[in-house]
Amino acid sequence: MQPHPSTERLVCAVMAGGSGTRFWPLSRRARPKQLVALVSGETLLAETLARVAPICPPERALVITAARLVDDVRAAVPNVPAAHVIGEPAARNTAPCMALAAIVAAQLAPDAILALLPADHHVGQPERFVAALSIACAHADEGHIVTLGVAPTRPETGYGYIQLGDQLSPDKSDPAVWAVARFVEKPDVETALDYLLGGRHLWNAGVFVLRADVALKAVRTALPELYEALAPLERGEVGRFDSDAFAEALTERFPLCPSISVDYGVMEHRTDLRSVRLDASWSDVGAWRSLLDHREADASNFIRGDVLELDCANSVLVSEGPLLAAIGLEGVAVIATEGAVLALPVGRSQDVRAIVELLRQRGRDDLL
Amino acid sequence: MQPHPSTERLVCAVMAGGSGTRFWPLSRRARPKQLVALVSGETLLAETLARVAPICPPERALVITAARLVDDVRAAVPNVPAAHVIGEPAARNTAPCMALAAIVAAQLAPDAILALLPADHHVGQPERFVAALSIACAHADEGHIVTLGVAPTRPETGYGYIQLGDQLSPDKSDPAVWAVARFVEKPDVETALDYLLGGRHLWNAGVFVLRADVALKAVRTALPELYEALAPLERGEVGRFDSDAFAEALTERFPLCPSISVDYGVMEHRTDLRSVRLDASWSDVGAWRSLLDHREADASNFIRGDVLELDCANSVLVSEGPLLAAIGLEGVAVIATEGAVLALPVGRSQDVRAIVELLRQRGRDDLL
Repeated sequence: MQPHPSTERLVCAVMAGGSGTRFWPLSRRARPKQLVALVSGETLLAETLARVAPICPPERALVITAARLVDDVRAAVPNVPAAHVIGEPAARNTAPCMALAAIVAAQLAPDAILALLPADHHVGQPERFVAALSIACAHADEGHIVTLGVAPTRPETGYGYIQLGDQLSPDKSDPAVWAVARFVEKPDVETALDYLLGGRHLWNAGVFVLRADVALKAVRTALPELYEALAPLERGEVGRFDSDAFAEALTERFPLCPSISVDYGVMEHRTDLRSVRLDASWSDVGAWRSLLDHREADASNFIRGDVLELDCANSVLVSEGPLLAAIGLEGVAVIATEGAVLALPVGRSQDVRAIVELLRQRGRDDLL
Repeated sequence: MQPHPSTERLVCAVMAGGSGTRFWPLSRRARPKQLVALVSGETLLAETLARVAPICPPERALVITAARLVDDVRAAVPNVPAAHVIGEPAARNTAPCMALAAIVAAQLAPDAILALLPADHHVGQPERFVAALSIACAHADEGHIVTLGVAPTRPETGYGYIQLGDQLSPDKSDPAVWAVARFVEKPDVETALDYLLGGRHLWNAGVFVLRADVALKAVRTALPELYEALAPLERGEVGRFDSDAFAEALTERFPLCPSISVDYGVMEHRTDLRSVRLDASWSDVGAWRSLLDHREADASNFIRGDVLELDCANSVLVSEGPLLAAIGLEGVAVIATEGAVLALPVGRSQDVRAIVELLRQRGRDDLL
């Protein structure tokens, strides 16, 4: 499939400010999930940029991250121009991030189309992701706000959903495009099963595609305070995004933004959204257990690094340093790093947070 | 209980030449089991010497080990005079070790009584061990060969047994002393259960107590070739055991010894053995699983080192370096060292050998 011509104005802004603890001890405060090579040999951030590269080369890519992570992010994606990696002076959730990205995107490409992408997801079929993004671009170019909605594969209760309205694309077109009826909160399991079987709901994967000017107008309407905070940067008073004056203004103004997400702050109020259905083996790589979904074909276990395995099944065996020898484990995750080792049944992957919290309480900050 | 006066001539010879793989990755080729602090904070070797210290101070202790381990052994038991740590120039099993120990013991104490002790066992009630050893000394002083036999606590199929003959000590004396009827091989489980319930069998723990001259005479009778090999050292032609000439002669003559155990080569032919019953929470610390027997009172798990544990049960959690965080494990052993991590169900502790063999095949000698 030829990409839509509007993709030549596509600017992908990868939101890489996260600092999750769910992949401790591989992820640390200084190296959050997006900077870890969790699924493939590449970091999830590098995967994200490589995925969109066919329609968005590094010169049109942005990475918005936390100020303290800027150097590590630049090292992780050396193809991206250093000035395109922007550090947020304060953590303010995703709506200010979108506004900042829109301001910079408008400077990178005339009539820029902005795609906001989480930095820490995995997509098994990247060519299908590109096809959906291309369709989303075409709709965004017409002034619509478009979200990629993931075709659900299980009655997941951990995600928000997009409830679909009218189908806008011809029958059997792939990817299909719908009007969005509304966003719905994380459901209980019965509701999630209804959603899965009904075929009228998609997972909200946090991917939004819209023209830069539409983004700024949407922010101005929904969150005028946020818009005012960043207005000096938008109006070009402080020069281009790669100037010192811009950096100074960012440092001064960004902390004034309210902390609010794109979803709650901007999108939930809109009645004119569209959604492109994404069926591309997407995964948010949410916890150690989820790596079982990324086993090699016919493999019983997910194995990465220097691992010697005998008679194990449904286990996640990862080493980033020591040799990890595992015998006869069933459904256990063992993660070995130089300073810390984690072992738990995969079904208790969520409880990593408890360990991290305990380490915090005990002052073991060197391990966080 | 007062120790028997003969214990003033007791020389304890600890056989520390073993090189087991069952506690990999904590035990390595360069640091076999006896040099690992497995149960208490001390190495099993240091435990062994501390246990007998009340009746055998370090000046009357010997440690016979492999030549390549001499420096590490000396470092592990700094109280023992350096010259009392003797390296065997070649591995020749325990009968040559006993002969060498008897030769040296005769130089350390007139009319020396020799106790041969494995270096890698744990005894939960050391004062009862000392009481049994003292009784054994008294019988050995009369010229008898005495073995300590462990009161069985389960139908163990992994040990050899001592079948008891007539009881030689008064009824209800503790520890009791018997004539040995014979040594019996590792039994099947039904036989082991008979032994356990019958009360006429003890575990052969490899502990022998006998006068040095009796030991040499027994070797001369049963294994004349061995005796001849070491005869120049016995006759004092080469000076005391701490002389260079003795060391040279040992290097030359020891490899000439046949490789055979005390049990098979010397003891099985005797009909005049005695056994002192040992009921002292003895353990040969045979595999990772056996550490569950050494849990603190009321503890669900065996834990050593920098370990953070949540909701685990019947698990062995040991770290010698990295923090080990374990959640929700049931019956799993996780052993963390700097270069290698092992994880397996405790019931598969024996399979550590398979991992070690695989590492050998793959040329990972740095980890062995």
